Amino acid sequence: MTTIQVNKEHDEIFPDNWKKCIGTGRLGLALQQEYLDHLKTVQEDIGFSYIRGHGLLYDDIGIYREIEVDGEKKPFYNFTYVDRIFDAFLELGLKPFIEIGFMPKLLASDDQTIFAWEGNVTPPNDYHKWEDLIQAVTEHFIERYGREEVLTWPFEIWNEPNLVNFWKDADKEEYFRLYQVTARAIKSVHGDIQVGGPAICGGSDEWITDFLTFCNNENVPVDFVSRHAYTSRPPHKVTADHYYQELTEPDKMLREFKDVRQMIMDTDFSDLPFHITEYNTSYSPINPVHDTTLNAAYLAKILSEGGDHVDSFSYWTFSDVFEESDVPKAQFHGGFGLMGLGKVRKPTYHLFAFFNRLGSRLLYRDDQVIVTEKEDGSMVLIVWNLVMEKGEEFNRPLDIHLPLGEGKYFVSSHSISEKYANPWKVWQQMGRPRFPSQNQVETLKQSAIPLFESVQHNVTGEDLSLDLTLTKNEVKLIEIVVVNDETETYLGLDDSLIDSY
Amino acid sequence: MTTIQVNKEHDEIFPDNWKKCIGTGRLGLALQQEYLDHLKTVQEDIGFSYIRGHGLLYDDIGIYREIEVDGEKKPFYNFTYVDRIFDAFLELGLKPFIEIGFMPKLLASDDQTIFAWEGNVTPPNDYHKWEDLIQAVTEHFIERYGREEVLTWPFEIWNEPNLVNFWKDADKEEYFRLYQVTARAIKSVHGDIQVGGPAICGGSDEWITDFLTFCNNENVPVDFVSRHAYTSRPPHKVTADHYYQELTEPDKMLREFKDVRQMIMDTDFSDLPFHITEYNTSYSPINPVHDTTLNAAYLAKILSEGGDHVDSFSYWTFSDVFEESDVPKAQFHGGFGLMGLGKVRKPTYHLFAFFNRLGSRLLYRDDQVIVTEKEDGSMVLIVWNLVMEKGEEFNRPLDIHLPLGEGKYFVSSHSISEKYANPWKVWQQMGRPRFPSQNQVETLKQSAIPLFESVQHNVTGEDLSLDLTLTKNEVKLIEIVVVNDETETYLGLDDSLIDSY
Amino acid sequence: MTTIQVNKEHDEIFPDNWKKCIGTGRLGLALQQEYLDHLKTVQEDIGFSYIRGHGLLYDDIGIYREIEVDGEKKPFYNFTYVDRIFDAFLELGLKPFIEIGFMPKLLASDDQTIFAWEGNVTPPNDYHKWEDLIQAVTEHFIERYGREEVLTWPFEIWNEPNLVNFWKDADKEEYFRLYQVTARAIKSVHGDIQVGGPAICGGSDEWITDFLTFCNNENVPVDFVSRHAYTSRPPHKVTADHYYQELTEPDKMLREFKDVRQMIMDTDFSDLPFHITEYNTSYSPINPVHDTTLNAAYLAKILSEGGDHVDSFSYWTFSDVFEESDVPKAQFHGGFGLMGLGKVRKPTYHLFAFFNRLGSRLLYRDDQVIVTEKEDGSMVLIVWNLVMEKGEEFNRPLDIHLPLGEGKYFVSSHSISEKYANPWKVWQQMGRPRFPSQNQVETLKQSAIPLFESVQHNVTGEDLSLDLTLTKNEVKLIEIVVVNDETETYLGLDDSLIDSY
Amino acid sequence: MTTIQVNKEHDEIFPDNWKKCIGTGRLGLALQQEYLDHLKTVQEDIGFSYIRGHGLLYDDIGIYREIEVDGEKKPFYNFTYVDRIFDAFLELGLKPFIEIGFMPKLLASDDQTIFAWEGNVTPPNDYHKWEDLIQAVTEHFIERYGREEVLTWPFEIWNEPNLVNFWKDADKEEYFRLYQVTARAIKSVHGDIQVGGPAICGGSDEWITDFLTFCNNENVPVDFVSRHAYTSRPPHKVTADHYYQELTEPDKMLREFKDVRQMIMDTDFSDLPFHITEYNTSYSPINPVHDTTLNAAYLAKILSEGGDHVDSFSYWTFSDVFEESDVPKAQFHGGFGLMGLGKVRKPTYHLFAFFNRLGSRLLYRDDQVIVTEKEDGSMVLIVWNLVMEKGEEFNRPLDIHLPLGEGKYFVSSHSISEKYANPWKVWQQMGRPRFPSQNQVETLKQSAIPLFESVQHNVTGEDLSLDLTLTKNEVKLIEIVVVNDETETYLGLDDSLIDSY
Repeated sequence: MTTIQVNKEHDEIFPDNWKKCIGTGRLGLALQQEYLDHLKTVQEDIGFSYIRGHGLLYDDIGIYREIEVDGEKKPFYNFTYVDRIFDAFLELGLKPFIEIGFMPKLLASDDQTIFAWEGNVTPPNDYHKWEDLIQAVTEHFIERYGREEVLTWPFEIWNEPNLVNFWKDADKEEYFRLYQVTARAIKSVHGDIQVGGPAICGGSDEWITDFLTFCNNENVPVDFVSRHAYTSRPPHKVTADHYYQELTEPDKMLREFKDVRQMIMDTDFSDLPFHITEYNTSYSPINPVHDTTLNAAYLAKILSEGGDHVDSFSYWTFSDVFEESDVPKAQFHGGFGLMGLGKVRKPTYHLFAFFNRLGSRLLYRDDQVIVTEKEDGSMVLIVWNLVMEKGEEFNRPLDIHLPLGEGKYFVSSHSISEKYANPWKVWQQMGRPRFPSQNQVETLKQSAIPLFESVQHNVTGEDLSLDLTLTKNEVKLIEIVVVNDETETYLGLDDSLIDSY
Repeated sequence: MTTIQVNKEHDEIFPDNWKKCIGTGRLGLALQQEYLDHLKTVQEDIGFSYIRGHGLLYDDIGIYREIEVDGEKKPFYNFTYVDRIFDAFLELGLKPFIEIGFMPKLLASDDQTIFAWEGNVTPPNDYHKWEDLIQAVTEHFIERYGREEVLTWPFEIWNEPNLVNFWKDADKEEYFRLYQVTARAIKSVHGDIQVGGPAICGGSDEWITDFLTFCNNENVPVDFVSRHAYTSRPPHKVTADHYYQELTEPDKMLREFKDVRQMIMDTDFSDLPFHITEYNTSYSPINPVHDTTLNAAYLAKILSEGGDHVDSFSYWTFSDVFEESDVPKAQFHGGFGLMGLGKVRKPTYHLFAFFNRLGSRLLYRDDQVIVTEKEDGSMVLIVWNLVMEKGEEFNRPLDIHLPLGEGKYFVSSHSISEKYANPWKVWQQMGRPRFPSQNQVETLKQSAIPLFESVQHNVTGEDLSLDLTLTKNEVKLIEIVVVNDETETYLGLDDSLIDSY
Repeated sequence: MTTIQVNKEHDEIFPDNWKKCIGTGRLGLALQQEYLDHLKTVQEDIGFSYIRGHGLLYDDIGIYREIEVDGEKKPFYNFTYVDRIFDAFLELGLKPFIEIGFMPKLLASDDQTIFAWEGNVTPPNDYHKWEDLIQAVTEHFIERYGREEVLTWPFEIWNEPNLVNFWKDADKEEYFRLYQVTARAIKSVHGDIQVGGPAICGGSDEWITDFLTFCNNENVPVDFVSRHAYTSRPPHKVTADHYYQELTEPDKMLREFKDVRQMIMDTDFSDLPFHITEYNTSYSPINPVHDTTLNAAYLAKILSEGGDHVDSFSYWTFSDVFEESDVPKAQFHGGFGLMGLGKVRKPTYHLFAFFNRLGSRLLYRDDQVIVTEKEDGSMVLIVWNLVMEKGEEFNRPLDIHLPLGEGKYFVSSHSISEKYANPWKVWQQMGRPRFPSQNQVETLKQSAIPLFESVQHNVTGEDLSLDLTLTKNEVKLIEIVVVNDETETYLGLDDSLIDSY
Repeated sequence: MTTIQVNKEHDEIFPDNWKKCIGTGRLGLALQQEYLDHLKTVQEDIGFSYIRGHGLLYDDIGIYREIEVDGEKKPFYNFTYVDRIFDAFLELGLKPFIEIGFMPKLLASDDQTIFAWEGNVTPPNDYHKWEDLIQAVTEHFIERYGREEVLTWPFEIWNEPNLVNFWKDADKEEYFRLYQVTARAIKSVHGDIQVGGPAICGGSDEWITDFLTFCNNENVPVDFVSRHAYTSRPPHKVTADHYYQELTEPDKMLREFKDVRQMIMDTDFSDLPFHITEYNTSYSPINPVHDTTLNAAYLAKILSEGGDHVDSFSYWTFSDVFEESDVPKAQFHGGFGLMGLGKVRKPTYHLFAFFNRLGSRLLYRDDQVIVTEKEDGSMVLIVWNLVMEKGEEFNRPLDIHLPLGEGKYFVSSHSISEKYANPWKVWQQMGRPRFPSQNQVETLKQSAIPLFESVQHNVTGEDLSLDLTLTKNEVKLIEIVVVNDETETYLGLDDSLIDSY
């Protein structure tokens, strides 16, 4: 039994950096109805501020084209689809966190691609044409959305250039060249647009200092630093449809956030914002961990503490509408999404929705609890019980003392666990239907609703004591509001006069 | 422990008479947005065929008016509102089960009224004007909705004329006169429109035979017989806002259905349809029993068996948007509605929604269980544990053997009980807020969702055995579908490679 | 031919006082779905800030009730309906412009009523109970909607107390007493809530000065002055369903705005806001003028200039969902509404929607034209041709010179006239169906769309010249935006290669 | 002046074959929100029964995949997307008119492709794998949608195999082989599924007889015959973005319908249904004629008479959401769609919507008029004035005598012409914005509404005479309903008492 005493004097703001940005599959997917249905619901329940994904310049959106005029190829910039996509984002309250990439086929210097959808990852075959493209795109954004709006959009150059599969040969010098040309092209349209990089994945953090040194030496503009973070170890089994990895402990990710922030602080660019533009447990879109309750319990501490170290961290991704490993082959397939196909909310979805109910004043925080207060005086807690071991018997008792003072309180909770709000398990019981019927999807959606419970507490002393037992990987949102008891105004009320009561 | 062996040879159709008709507050309320919001949801989840309520001729709809022409008053029939109301019903898939009444103020012979909204319950002051009105209304319905449509609408004359508060002096001869004039007026428009009565409440069933004898003797048309049924005893406490009664056992209502049907069978009109045009536990709109789980558990047997005896039975009423005892004074106030204010589903709502999931083939039925089969071969059961005694310890173990044969089955359930899907209890914990905030209403709605649970059963013998323990007043829907197990198609699948699993 | 030369140097803000407030039928009607459908559309197309109507304390909303406790009647305040209504208003972006009235039946000192719906217009029978009611209502508003919000709501005391049918005996001293008690009761809840009066109709403007003198002498709080304005002469024919009046010229209303403003300026309360809390052509809800194009053409000048003199002027009313002369007896019946039954937009609706397209910079204004500029540099004009004489031949040529400078311009217009967007005329052609079928209503809605026309102008000199001929009572919105001509980018374009072109 | 005398004795059913089927861009586009928005509106206004498009087996839907198992490639059938697409169609009331094609990349025998999206048009590299695929797909349809449903879906084998760009070498023998294997694979799942071909474009009608002879000789199943029809001549100018052609006269298409029907009648398969599975004026998706009023006026006769000769004819296509010539490069770009980007209705959209208002009884028909009667006795006409010459002066007077008999009639019309409902022209006035702002799109949508006009006719003799003058390429819908004149019921009505009237 762990006993926790919350102290009301603790006074700190709980930053909402955890909801600043969300990752998405390739932007071209944003034309799809199912994608937009998911995103609308996500925005209602969570409400991210920015959205970031690959493929702005990929050929399905088709911005870069060439037409032949008098025997000569000339660039043609087609904004039909990108306008439709960004219009939709903005209508949903989301600003683009621009990622510049990948290479349009007609501008590519080689044919190396990544993903089932074959994004080209080679440098431009003509840096002048590239520069023109970047300028044209930036100008178009300002023309359509206004200067004031576009100045709030970060422009990040490329994605994970430190990996050979994302940037040909992981050629650092070539990346710096690309960065320089691109950043200057953007700034030539308006000097206050924010540009940044190097958008590396973890494991090569020397790129961060090299990148900032380069910017410093070459006087190249840089307005923010970005990096990714995943916490899974190398795979121990990989098949066509499954990718199995073990997870490190969650603190590892928090340490990375902190360490890289310190690296930046140690440069001449110590004031720059630091954005984690992708993070998740596993970096594989076919790792079943993403569908589990474990994933939610694991990430709880990261949502709770990540914002202490970074300006934003962007969960990769909001939806299983995603094609990097081809069209999803089954209802559950280990996809990154908070929301599964058919609008089925996965456990991690609820983790985010729970965090969205927290107050802005932080009262207490440890490895398994976060306690906040809202402006109306109510308290909102999230408690969790991460268990990475196998087996069922890992119940954890918790006794939390909240300094609410004398009075009656309405205490309500929403819970997810291995037993409740676990559609992945229900789907297994159904026989893992790859292409479930509409009825089956409806059942999965019903199965995904967190367990609601409530009680009235009558506090006679100083503390309201919550005696909880969390089951394995349970994550529970608890909301406590003072009761304004109107019972006395019901004259003659006597429930005992009803049969049964 | 009760053990139940279901036998697949039992072959019977389960009639859907329980959903043929639903009661509503005064028709004028059907102009309201909240009313229509409730009704839309009810139709999606349950899908009644007809709707019946008071007040077609009440002055808020305002059909009967008079205008002065050259110093003389002449009738003016205003269909502005009734058209809007019936248009809305039909758009929601509901046909009107017409109730002719109450008396327009300008046609009333006296000033006796009923309800907070003061419906006049006296005979017409001029039977010729009344006849003209009835004809005009009937003609208008045919003109607007077509003959074919209107021929499917029953026209019931008046409401509970055997009560002095619903019909002046409960004057039987005067009622027969009214019936005769009205029925003939309707038939004069089209002879195939169905007319009926006497719409009595229970306790004076001699009216039924008297009515049919009258029709026979006077050659007055009659196409159906109607009656009401409530199962609560006289009140033992009444205040301005509460009306407390005990309930009889549910069989009493079923016996009434059966007995009156037999009375009709014993007349020359033995073929006439028999409609229960109102029923509920209590006849009071301020009896808290309507908000309870008890109400749902109590009515389960009536929904299960009522249709054996009557052609329709119409629950009174679908919504707490209702004004017979004035504008509702609190979120929960003992109203008749399946749905409470703010679209909060009450336990009885779910009872109806559960019945709507049943199959059409009846396999087994007793006091606590109904088992059906659907066309696709799946089985759907409802089980309940009615406990009319006080106290908490009334768990009931049940062991149900279903002859499903060898195979894997997906068994899912939705449950309501004193603990789950009990918004009335949650509202008490909140301090019984009369006018809850939008947040409080949102919490009540979340609290009203039935508990979902599921499991996969592997049947190796003949029967799938369900070992259940029902808590007090629990009502549980259980759906069983065969599993088409696709697990083998996931090559290399191994959940044990995920941490925790 | 009138020639108008617009001068770009003219620099003035066009105030949007014309859309500050809108009138509504009795607040209880705001429970209705049709009412809310109309209001939603009105808010999308026009977007008023406040809404004002009678009946906050009328018995259909039922705020004031009494319950018997131990043989004694005690007040009970029921907020079920008013919460629903105000929630709906706020969700549509409308704040209540509170009108305190009429008298709840249980508090009335006499039985004098007004309107088909019988609003009681007598003083309270007990000023203490009245004071308690007003305080309770005000407190409830603050509890539910927050202090900050309620401080933006004006509270106007009563309606047209200078008329004997709206206030018993038009007793001025009694009104002052009512005002004093009410204003102080409101201020006792929060001193910054705005209170005002005397809400008189025209014709007794001495009430204004008397009222302010009274407030001054008695030190009674007053935060704004209010009055009504109608421009029709006494009726020359009145029947049960029609009320015919001639209109004065529109300037009369503007003079009244100005004169009363001057009266206020001449008191010690010269800084007080002055609100016209009702205005229209005719004050009768069965005067067919409201359905005509004349009504729109007539009001154009008032919308154009009224805001120079008053802080708000509130058109009476937005919708024909209205019951002061009983339930509407026909599709068109002379109702006040901008929108007719079945969501049919009347000509005056478009007048308001046209004004809502104007820019905020006023360039030119006269009796038949208003010219504005928007922030994006486009020009928006409204032109109209008010003809109050009978006959068809009143075309008016207009030549407007707009200093837009060299370039290409896209000029588009929307027009209403006797011929187009005149559903009242179409309804006459249909045979004036009182209760039109859904098909007929659909046709009326299609008939109510303004005529759209457009052209490209190529200005080579300084001015764009618009050569217009307005037909009788035509009102035309003209929008002029500069063309960014992309034609040259379509390589090889040649429309003449298409057949027909 | 043409005078037309309609005779009521003429009694014929007007077949609705014109709305049996509609064409669509590649099925993968049906995942997009804009596509589905367009289709929903099309279904509301027109209501087609079937939808047909390319790409069922194209790699973006991704049905055919292979996975490696123990070093061997095995087929994997992925129905995730096709289920989503067909679910959406059926929800919109559309059944699939299945077109089997093109070749999945992994099954292709060569790399020849068609369209910007590169559909492979080569025979299978392994007819056994192809057969397995076809069987698997057919079985899946039956499993998901039910046998009864799928038996109503025609399965057409391939598209335009008589063209070298749609079928490698236009190899007829190879097509017959493909047809035979495919048809038998489908029939092996259920013998009553309808299969057909040869889906040729015009110009090689010997394929029809060869195909039927082949089926006869080889005893290959065939349930219907299909062909395409376009009426434009070879292009006289082609650029990257424009394709200009002249049109033949519309009778040419009708003659083709008739002649091919006759060819079929002359075989042993004379009873087979004959479907035109694609038709339009031009077969190019960048021919501006599709955006014009000419296109609508041109097709009027074909909609009017086509159904006499063929069982269905499917306009190619419903929407400009289409990618055969790459992502659309501008708002208007000569696309096939009835509906342009941004939900802008093009003139031909209205032609179809007008036809959808016609009655089922055909009274009269010629080159410029179709007159029908509805069940309620109202008459509905469409008149048009096709002018394929250049210039503006081609007004056509028409005098139509309709045998309606004495009485008052409400005559209303909706018109499209070069002047009204011509958004293509308005877009030109705007400067042809490629990527219009949301405001510009809104203006285009308003500009696309047909002109509404109405009048009341008082017929004293036998005929109602319509004196019309149609402008160039005008298409006008005229609806005539008898007036039930209620004017007399408005006692005291006198419009002349209103100013202006």
